Amino acid sequence: MTAIRPAETASVAQAFASVFALLKPHMAALDTFLAGQISAFEPEIRSMADYCIDTSGKRIRPALVFLGGWRGNGMVAPDLVRVAAVVELVHLATLVHDDIMDGAEVRRNRRTAAREFGAAGAVLLGDALFAHALHLAAQFPTTEVCAAVSESTRRVVSGEIVQTLRRGTTNVSRADYFRIIDLKTAELFRVSCFLGARLAGSAPGYVEAVSRFGEHLGVAYQIYDDLADYFGQEAKIGKTLGTDLASGKLTLPLIALSERLSATDQADLAAEIRGQRSPDLATRLQQMNELGVFGVVAEAVQSELAVATEAVQEWPNEAPTPLLLSLCDVLRAQVTALEPR
Amino acid sequence: MTAIRPAETASVAQAFASVFALLKPHMAALDTFLAGQISAFEPEIRSMADYCIDTSGKRIRPALVFLGGWRGNGMVAPDLVRVAAVVELVHLATLVHDDIMDGAEVRRNRRTAAREFGAAGAVLLGDALFAHALHLAAQFPTTEVCAAVSESTRRVVSGEIVQTLRRGTTNVSRADYFRIIDLKTAELFRVSCFLGARLAGSAPGYVEAVSRFGEHLGVAYQIYDDLADYFGQEAKIGKTLGTDLASGKLTLPLIALSERLSATDQADLAAEIRGQRSPDLATRLQQMNELGVFGVVAEAVQSELAVATEAVQEWPNEAPTPLLLSLCDVLRAQVTALEPR
Repeated sequence: MTAIRPAETASVAQAFASVFALLKPHMAALDTFLAGQISAFEPEIRSMADYCIDTSGKRIRPALVFLGGWRGNGMVAPDLVRVAAVVELVHLATLVHDDIMDGAEVRRNRRTAAREFGAAGAVLLGDALFAHALHLAAQFPTTEVCAAVSESTRRVVSGEIVQTLRRGTTNVSRADYFRIIDLKTAELFRVSCFLGARLAGSAPGYVEAVSRFGEHLGVAYQIYDDLADYFGQEAKIGKTLGTDLASGKLTLPLIALSERLSATDQADLAAEIRGQRSPDLATRLQQMNELGVFGVVAEAVQSELAVATEAVQEWPNEAPTPLLLSLCDVLRAQVTALEPR
Repeated sequence: MTAIRPAETASVAQAFASVFALLKPHMAALDTFLAGQISAFEPEIRSMADYCIDTSGKRIRPALVFLGGWRGNGMVAPDLVRVAAVVELVHLATLVHDDIMDGAEVRRNRRTAAREFGAAGAVLLGDALFAHALHLAAQFPTTEVCAAVSESTRRVVSGEIVQTLRRGTTNVSRADYFRIIDLKTAELFRVSCFLGARLAGSAPGYVEAVSRFGEHLGVAYQIYDDLADYFGQEAKIGKTLGTDLASGKLTLPLIALSERLSATDQADLAAEIRGQRSPDLATRLQQMNELGVFGVVAEAVQSELAVATEAVQEWPNEAPTPLLLSLCDVLRAQVTALEPR
């Protein structure tokens, strides 16, 4: 199966841009730092690594590092730049490997690494990016960054494995769905926030609060992304709608729909997921509209954002708090904007 | 292309067994440690991880950790067990990824992970093994193990990339060949020896000597392996001869052959490497015999073993020295045993 995939749902990343604007010097420092890493790779691999470490990504995870470690003076701390590079490289490596599995041809408006270098090249290139991320992590004075990043990486990859194993099956409960997105998306959001706050020397309680914020923002973000797969405007989010249905991926919108269908309709949907019947997107969208699926899923996003908000609002005087809260506001507004009229 | 691949050239591993015999308690501790790691993976992945972390591997790299850190009393040091697990997991991860690229169906007499779990599952499983290796590395008091292992991993992967990029081309000089095997094989041998000696608290000069030993043993081992692809006894080494020719892989025996062929024969060989002509193994073997290729390549193995030997024999009173030297003796004897009559 061939799919066109964007780096991130473009509209969210664009919306976050209002908050990220004050990170311009941080992002410039990150780009410089990443560009400087290319020479660490063997000569033959430099152009391949460079191809992946481009500057067109939305850099949401590095932004969370910088925001979680925000000290209020806009200073660009070198250790935050390094750790932002670590989480971004891990993220890029997972994208390179994901695109092999999805057979994705295009990402960020150009050919995926898998398409450009072949599957074999892409497997190894992803490995090299992972290894380099951990190598940068090992340059901190203690093992804390290495420990956090390697554990997170294993959890992210585990989420992808579980999702891959369940694809094309109806064996995905609500609890399974939340566990998968907690692993594959929220974990790296969480560790980005954690490392930012930790390296900035925040109090342990606030580090814990910011980590919790990151995790729930990540869950909210992924649910939003899955909702946009059905309710987004194609041009705006830059991808074809209903790709999850077409690829047999049971995400919250389909789970919520299935819960509300009659036994017969449920069986038809199950057959579409299993690939025994060709997917009928128009019917599914109509049923989603009739059965209020948008509202149910949007509520799940809002509920995660409420937990994220609660985690940090007890610490109003910490410099990162207002910035982190504004990310929630942005995502909240984005969900509202998706609402079908 | 489909290939049957053994874990390691079996005859060498069996021959090393005479030296490894005194490591029985160490290997038992390693097996127990590795088995205990399975529960660290997500439930769905445990059986996949268990499938890879089996006990039938030859565990050459862990053996180098234990020998490099040998203190003469046979004591099983927990930190050596942990670091042996780290290098073995990195090695297993690279095998899982290699088998995807090679389309290998069988390894260690059973289906490869790629065949058992699909390419997508195998990519992610390899990632999870890598990540777990680095997670174990991060449990040491300092970042030294993490730094060494992540750097080595990147170098191993880089060697694989360069080899993959050059496969099916005649663009592999002798220097390229040595660089590739230094990265893909010797690096992990080197770091295994290094970490063993380092964690055992050896003097810096001896740590350096043991590392140098490991690197050159690794180069010798890989050249031997490549020689056995043409001159091994199929039943003994457990694989089909000439698979490197069939897959367009220019290793030292073919490079040495090409150097000795007439321009016309060279062009024929080049066409076989590029897949423009079906490989004629019988002719190539006959030419190798006529042109003394065995002797040339065997000499390259011996020359690497001489460097390895020289590195440690200046330290005769260090406990690991006689054990490491006996590995060279074993490999030397193996090469002689391959010699065509």
